[in-house]
Amino acid sequence: MLPFGDELLVLTHDTMVAGVHFLPEQDPADVAWKLVATNISDLAAKGAQPVGVLLSYQLTGGEERFLSGLREALAAYGAPLLGGDTVGGAGPQVVGLTALGRATHRPVPGRDGARAGDGIYLTGALGGAMVGLEALRAGADPALSLAYRRPQARLTEGIALAPHVSAMMDVSDGLLLDATRLARASGVTLSLSAAAIPLAAPEHRRAEALRWGDDYQLLFTAAPGATLPVPAARIGTVLPAAEAPLLLDGTPPDGALGYTH
Amino acid sequence: MLPFGDELLVLTHDTMVAGVHFLPEQDPADVAWKLVATNISDLAAKGAQPVGVLLSYQLTGGEERFLSGLREALAAYGAPLLGGDTVGGAGPQVVGLTALGRATHRPVPGRDGARAGDGIYLTGALGGAMVGLEALRAGADPALSLAYRRPQARLTEGIALAPHVSAMMDVSDGLLLDATRLARASGVTLSLSAAAIPLAAPEHRRAEALRWGDDYQLLFTAAPGATLPVPAARIGTVLPAAEAPLLLDGTPPDGALGYTH
Repeated sequence: MLPFGDELLVLTHDTMVAGVHFLPEQDPADVAWKLVATNISDLAAKGAQPVGVLLSYQLTGGEERFLSGLREALAAYGAPLLGGDTVGGAGPQVVGLTALGRATHRPVPGRDGARAGDGIYLTGALGGAMVGLEALRAGADPALSLAYRRPQARLTEGIALAPHVSAMMDVSDGLLLDATRLARASGVTLSLSAAAIPLAAPEHRRAEALRWGDDYQLLFTAAPGATLPVPAARIGTVLPAAEAPLLLDGTPPDGALGYTH
Repeated sequence: MLPFGDELLVLTHDTMVAGVHFLPEQDPADVAWKLVATNISDLAAKGAQPVGVLLSYQLTGGEERFLSGLREALAAYGAPLLGGDTVGGAGPQVVGLTALGRATHRPVPGRDGARAGDGIYLTGALGGAMVGLEALRAGADPALSLAYRRPQARLTEGIALAPHVSAMMDVSDGLLLDATRLARASGVTLSLSAAAIPLAAPEHRRAEALRWGDDYQLLFTAAPGATLPVPAARIGTVLPAAEAPLLLDGTPPDGALGYTH
């Protein structure tokens, strides 16, 4: 964030690497969409209205499809392409995007504002991207992989929520991992109820879905009695800092909590 | 450029790829310096004061040296690191930087303002980076490769010149190529005098030096009688648009005009 003139500028940059963040054989239009969505999702979590993006693009062929997906995504979020750089190189493709936004509410929501007694909320279901990636890998009907290929940044929701939340972030690396980060930044413990978390995957995969990123739901906390302007599932309660930053049904969750790139 | 609040934001992004924009075996501190300098040079050409940068960094080892060079360069230009992204991946390293600046003069100098009768100027000598790269490749005394390894963005000069120029750009791909771009954008012909162009290379390499980038001098035009606030060499005169956008000693230059990445 950067005060600029009489406004507050919110900045984000995400880089994606073929074979790490997307499948090398994926449709470049979907890669472009996801690159835009991940960045806009970061703005959404800060309640920022996009004002434009800068693209870093490594040429590997497939430019037309990439540009087509880029145009679609930028139009969807109202973010003009302001500039960028195109480079050559023979390695696995690297693409990056810087997104700029204008804060619509101050203070800008951060990860550090959750307080004991606050409710914990999620804007929607988890696991859709996980199931979608599997469908894509299996060569299934493209409609079944849409959640993975074309994730939706919750921009409208983030802007609407910004004045009402005590802390907010987007879930990009897995709910349990991102919730732990929010708890640590706020100096509290987040107590989640597994059954309350909406799923877009079969019930027997709940544990995985809570550790999967790429759904880009917004995780936020709000004071008791806060009126929320958009639908959201109440998934837990903020507790005073305990030994563990995160409790799932009363105990610290096992194993890996999410995905670190 | 982006109007933001009551200010004008100037944005630039440059990406560099190992084996394309720098030698894979180069000191990462020098790579970081150059990445910063190329971006700050773009701001300088627009008379913009840096306000910060976002880094895209692909991990390949050598992080400590990279960060050391980055810190040095950001301190030299007064640009704080505001954020960015770190990614993995096994390919040739890709690093990128987005730089943000605040316009210090409006209108912001562009490439399209040169008018017939204007003088054409260069802030300094060309060929230093060319000779420096050769010294680096030859394993010579590091002092001899400094111009290549640690190029200087003409930030102070750009900001001082902005109110006085009709057009300005930084020479990053070779003087003859960049001058052609400026001529085309302005709808004029640039007539250069080869002998007037200051060299930081042996005289017999003049033709090459005029086609070599990476010196990051500022190329600008100014109305006759303009008072220039910094030293600059007068290297030619703007003519009404002729068939060729660029004349060198009266004739269109031969062969490749510069380097395209």
